[in-house]
Order: sequence, then structure tokens, then C-alpha cells
Amino acid sequence: MQSKLRNKLIIQKYGGSSVANIEKIEGVAERIISYAKQGNRIVVVASAMGDTTDALVCLAKKINPHPSEREMDMLISTGEQISCSLLAMAIHKRGVGAISFTGPQVGIVTDTYHTQAKILKIETDRIKKELANKMVVIVAGFQGVSTALEITTLGRGGSDLSAVALAVSLKADLCEICTDVDGIYTADPRIVKSAKKLKYITFDEMLELASRGAQVMHTRAVEVAKKFNIPLSVRSTFSKKEGTIIMKKMPFIEEAVVRGVTLAGNEAKITVCDLPDKPGIAAGIFNELAKVGVNVDMIVQNVSHKKITDISFTVLKEDISQTLKIARAIAKRVGAGQVIFDENIAKVSVVGVGMKSHSGVAAKTFSVLAKNKINIDMISTSEISISCVVKREAGKRALRALHKEFKLDRIKS
Amino acid sequence: MQSKLRNKLIIQKYGGSSVANIEKIEGVAERIISYAKQGNRIVVVASAMGDTTDALVCLAKKINPHPSEREMDMLISTGEQISCSLLAMAIHKRGVGAISFTGPQVGIVTDTYHTQAKILKIETDRIKKELANKMVVIVAGFQGVSTALEITTLGRGGSDLSAVALAVSLKADLCEICTDVDGIYTADPRIVKSAKKLKYITFDEMLELASRGAQVMHTRAVEVAKKFNIPLSVRSTFSKKEGTIIMKKMPFIEEAVVRGVTLAGNEAKITVCDLPDKPGIAAGIFNELAKVGVNVDMIVQNVSHKKITDISFTVLKEDISQTLKIARAIAKRVGAGQVIFDENIAKVSVVGVGMKSHSGVAAKTFSVLAKNKINIDMISTSEISISCVVKREAGKRALRALHKEFKLDRIKS
Repeated sequence: MQSKLRNKLIIQKYGGSSVANIEKIEGVAERIISYAKQGNRIVVVASAMGDTTDALVCLAKKINPHPSEREMDMLISTGEQISCSLLAMAIHKRGVGAISFTGPQVGIVTDTYHTQAKILKIETDRIKKELANKMVVIVAGFQGVSTALEITTLGRGGSDLSAVALAVSLKADLCEICTDVDGIYTADPRIVKSAKKLKYITFDEMLELASRGAQVMHTRAVEVAKKFNIPLSVRSTFSKKEGTIIMKKMPFIEEAVVRGVTLAGNEAKITVCDLPDKPGIAAGIFNELAKVGVNVDMIVQNVSHKKITDISFTVLKEDISQTLKIARAIAKRVGAGQVIFDENIAKVSVVGVGMKSHSGVAAKTFSVLAKNKINIDMISTSEISISCVVKREAGKRALRALHKEFKLDRIKS
Repeated sequence: MQSKLRNKLIIQKYGGSSVANIEKIEGVAERIISYAKQGNRIVVVASAMGDTTDALVCLAKKINPHPSEREMDMLISTGEQISCSLLAMAIHKRGVGAISFTGPQVGIVTDTYHTQAKILKIETDRIKKELANKMVVIVAGFQGVSTALEITTLGRGGSDLSAVALAVSLKADLCEICTDVDGIYTADPRIVKSAKKLKYITFDEMLELASRGAQVMHTRAVEVAKKFNIPLSVRSTFSKKEGTIIMKKMPFIEEAVVRGVTLAGNEAKITVCDLPDKPGIAAGIFNELAKVGVNVDMIVQNVSHKKITDISFTVLKEDISQTLKIARAIAKRVGAGQVIFDENIAKVSVVGVGMKSHSGVAAKTFSVLAKNKINIDMISTSEISISCVVKREAGKRALRALHKEFKLDRIKS
């Protein structure tokens, strides 16, 4: 792909692992220049070097276990400023013009929700001016300036989001997400040896994969790319191999029904026992959890008998203690029984837009797991995915079995 | 002094050693709060933590030995942003409101000379608003935003300068320079055991002391304080001891003639031998040096005989190689002799505004050195100071002898 790109406007996002040290920054500088030399105009979005952000967060928590979010944004936004200025210097050394900007400086305007701001608009005048001057423009990812003129950060996946938003605002020809993996795979290659890299994947499939455990891209950036129909190229910073294009529709008439399988181990199951089966009680629990920002993923309610039921649901492990506190308080109030939890679970998911029009994927999923003597604890389905909670120790086995059954090791693109 | 301050507007500047680690930042937070609790409005200017700036410069030089000054400013301005946000968090933990700002954010407007920008004006609206909200306002020192909307830094002594400029703009009642020494001494206490801390010193004396080797404050900040007549209090971050007030005029009718002695070892002597004694030749050398930014300090020209003379001058050691190159080129061109240099020198200075009206200080200085068998190599004088170049090994001895002779160990204030 690289060799065909000439005279285009390209956004390239480099993640923290791509600029983790001086050598890698020099490598990224060379990569950028190889594109610029072919007449392309380049806007680079860089993350903070390696674990810089984590180190800053750690420093802050030592000083104040509950730091103000505004001050957190002041603090952690420095990470990208450092990597971007160093990257500019590395490009200069190679005789190519480059200029770095902070998010606020370049006019990435956000709302006022510190540490998880949303981009409202991007003033592109300054970038366009520098592009016209044949400069490589380097923008600090993950940050912006709020309508109240404060420095904000965009939360998880923020740099991907900065890149996609810039691609939208600048009407870029291509948006590359350069990272430490070389594309989107049918399954995590560390677990499934025969996993295949996909040449194409749809926005919807990518969203499902990301929300079900694939860690390559955060859902927010994919959502924006989908909304504005900006194709994304996910590829390795460190190789010239073609990556995966995330786009609206697959470029073939016929396509594989299932495109990927994922495994997630970051959830725990909570069960409230002997809940009176009256309208509104279950809703009460989930309302309370929503209020404190706990995201409930899967919910299963047993068939009621004697007007008493059990209800199980999954939440992120980091939310367990808060969830237990709330669930136990409600259980006590309504006269329910014990609230128990199980961290020893895994969630396997099967994803593919083809499912919409192909029946039998769910049945096949269940029967594969049954054949492998893997018990299914909970099930949830969407139009293009099926997820099953299984015991943690069966997770990898389940993933490999599903990958094989749906012939993902023989997928073509 | 601290106990008397109530309902004042106070600027406090904390240097890098005052915020070098978490413990010190916590200490600074407590110190600030002790002032705020007495009804004072506080604007804090903080430097980067410890050696952060040096570490960033080192990182940049590894990537590009000649980094662009604009990108250097992008890079190193992050240091103060980090210390300021952490300081705000430490103050919050103690239940007091505080808010940190970058230089650009708070409207410290500078010219466009990156890495050595000059402050043009400060927009004080935002600071005043936050002060009215009873917030401790924390401003990143050493930085601003240029008229071209770029991030700039102010060069050496920049944070002191930010503090003084804020004191001017906000019409502060007091400007404290909080550092790791507890005031201005009659001599460096590490060399002269009997050195006394001065209670007061004039701007002019401070400027002389600073330019002749005293390292407590940079001359730029003192110059601005003098221009706008803002008294400065130089004192320790880590103790409650009163420091030294730098002001326009001493608050007594009679005062000591000599107020301090300094020793500087950062200069070298260059001698151009056998220079034709024609008008314009010496000037030629100094013009060339000025063009490349080399500062010449002391100049001595021998009495001419046979239309040939020797000329000696001192420059900073870091400028030696550049100076030699220029001097040797000119010497060759005009048919002069050898150009030799001596790094083995020291400069002792005697400073005091009283000298203006008291004769005999120079004579006393020379005779003390003679009595101690210390040879004087070069001499320069100003209205309020006398400096002598001596052999390096005699420097400390000369300093102690002068300190004793002028009875600085018995000075009262």
C-alpha cells in the first residue's frame, strides 16, 4: 500500500509502544519521511512514550489518592507534548521540516469533562497552513482544550480518537493507526497459533471485537470512523507488511459468516440469590449501578418459582467492590438472600456481520462448546455476535475450538 | 515576617530544589497553606522538579545535537506543568482550593525569541478571578506564549523572572523567592565560615553580587524588580528563618560601605601578545566576539612601547575555544604575536553601594591582597564594586582576607 500512496493527505497515529524510546522515535521519524518523500502531506498523532502516562498517574496518586481531574489533565497531557517535540527533532535531524503542536494549541476543542472529554470540533487553519508550508505536522494525541479554555484529555483510546477526528476534519485520504501489532486477527495469535490476519473488516465487526476483548483499537475511535465513514488502516509501525483495513462494507460479494473470535478475562459474575420476583426490583439494582458509572455487560435471570428468582450479571473486575456494596444494600432492603461473586470466569465471543443473514451460528457455537465438554454459564447475543461465559480455565480451549470450527484458520481476507 | 502577613497579595516562587520530590512538594504545600490561612491571597510560581529540565535537554540532544529552539521550548516547558499540577494536588489533599496554569494559559505573553524569550505583558484576568474565588493560583514558571502563539521559555533564571513579572502585573504586596539557601550572605558561607546573612541589600548591590559570582538570584529578575521597585524576599523554603530583603534603598541612614565579597571561577584570561598599537585593532577583536555572542568581562591593555602592546581580557570558560579561534585569526591578519590563555584564574570582588561616597575601598582592597602576598593580575571597577583577577589557588584566601578586612563578619543587617 505504501508504495502506491502519492500526493495524498495521510493521518498517521503512533501509539505509546511505537515511540517508547529514542531508537523507536528515530524509526518512526524515518517511516514518516518515507511517506512524505512521495509527495504526501502528513499529519502525525503521537501518544506519550511507553509507560509515561502510567508513571505520571502513579506520581499523582502518591501525592493525592483522589487527584482533581482537572489537575490530572494538566499533568498527563505533558506526556504527548514530550514525545511530539522529540519526534519533530528527530525529523529535523533528517533534513525534513516538521512542527509539533499540543492539542490546545492546534485547536482540538472538547467539552469540559476532564479525563474523558469528547471532541466537539477541530480548528484546522493552523494545520492547513503548516501543511501548505510542506511541514510534517505533529499533533499531541489524547488531549484538547475545553470550551472553558482548560486542558482536557480524552480518556482511553484517546490518541486513536484524535487521529480519526483529524482525518474527519481535514478530509484525509487515509488514516493509519500504527501500532505494535500488524493488523486485526481472527483471534489473539498468542492464544490461537493458527489465527489469520484479516485484510479487511467492517466497522461493526471491529466494534464487536473491541468491546468483546480485542485490544488493538478502542471502540470510541472506531465509532467516529464509522459515523464519518473514514477507512482506517491498522498496521505495524515496525514492518512494511500490509495491515487490516477497517471499512464500512467488505469489498466482496460473498464473505465469511464469522470473522473473528475473542476471549475476555476482565469481567466477574455477580449473583443476587432469592430475589423477590416483583417488577422493578432488578431494574433498581441496575439503575443504582448505572448512577455510579458501573457498566453491566451480560444479565441472566433464572426462571422464577415460588415468586423468588436468582439474577446474575457481569461487570468489570475493577468495579466488583463497588458493585457488591450496592447489590448487598439492595438485597438487604428488599429481603433477598446472599450476594455472591465469581471472578473465575472468561467470556468467549464469535463475531461476524454475516451472522445477520445466516442462521445456525449460535447453535453451532453451543454445540462446539458442548462437544468439548465446556459448560456455558451465561449467553448474550447481538445481531453480529454471540458471547458465552465459561469457567476461566476453559477459556483458551473454547477459543481454539471455535476458531477451528468456524474455519477461521482458512479465511482468505 | 510570616506572622505579620495578613490579607496581602503575595507571590511565592519555589525553585527546582524546593519541589524536587514528593516529600518536598508536600512541604511546599504546607508552607503555602500557612500563608493562605492568614487571609493572604497567594500566587505561586513553581520551577520544574529537581533536574527535570536538564534530563529533558539531555534526551533532546541524544535525538538531535542541534534541536530547534521552538521544539526545545515545547519539550522543556512540560517540566513546570508537571510540578505545578502535582503541587495543586498536594494542596487539595489538605482541603484548600488551588488551581494550576501553564504560562500560555494564564497569559504570560512574550516575544518570539525561543529559549530566551522576554516577557512583554501578563494578562491578569484569569488569575484575579481565581484569587477572588479564594484559590491558591499556581503558575508554571519559566514559560509563556509568544505573540506568534508559540510556547516559549525565558532562559536562565526564568522562574524568578515569572515571579517578579507577576508581582509587577498584579501589584503584589510582596514577592518571595523561596530557595534552598536562607538568604544573601556577605560571602559564600561554604568558603567563608564567618559569613553573615544580610537582612537587607539594595537592588544594585544584588546585581553586582550576582554578576560577580553569587548564584542565589539571576540578574534578569533583579533588574525587573529594580525597574518596577518590587521588594524581593529571598528565603529558605525549608525553614521559618527570615531571609534577605532586596530593595531600592537601605532602611538606615548609615550603612556599611562594603556589603559582600564574591569569588568567581568561571572565567579564563586570554592574552594577545605583540599587537600593533594602532587605533581600531583592539576594537576589532571585541566587535568580532560580540557578533558571535561572546561576553568579554575585564580588559587590560599594557602600556605601549615601540608601538606594540599586549592586550588581556576575560571571557566565560565555555566561550574559550570560540574566542581563541577569533582572536588567533585576527592576530594573524594584523601581524600580532601569540594568543595565549590561562584558565587558572579566579576573580574576587568587593561590593557595596557605600563605595560611591567612600573613597579608599580600592586602596584597602589592593593593600589587603598585597599584605597576603596575593598578586593582582587584572583590575576592574564600577561605582559600587571592585574586582581583581588573581591566581586560582589564591582565590579562597583572597576572599577570606577581604571578608575579614571589611569587617563583614561583624555586619549588623
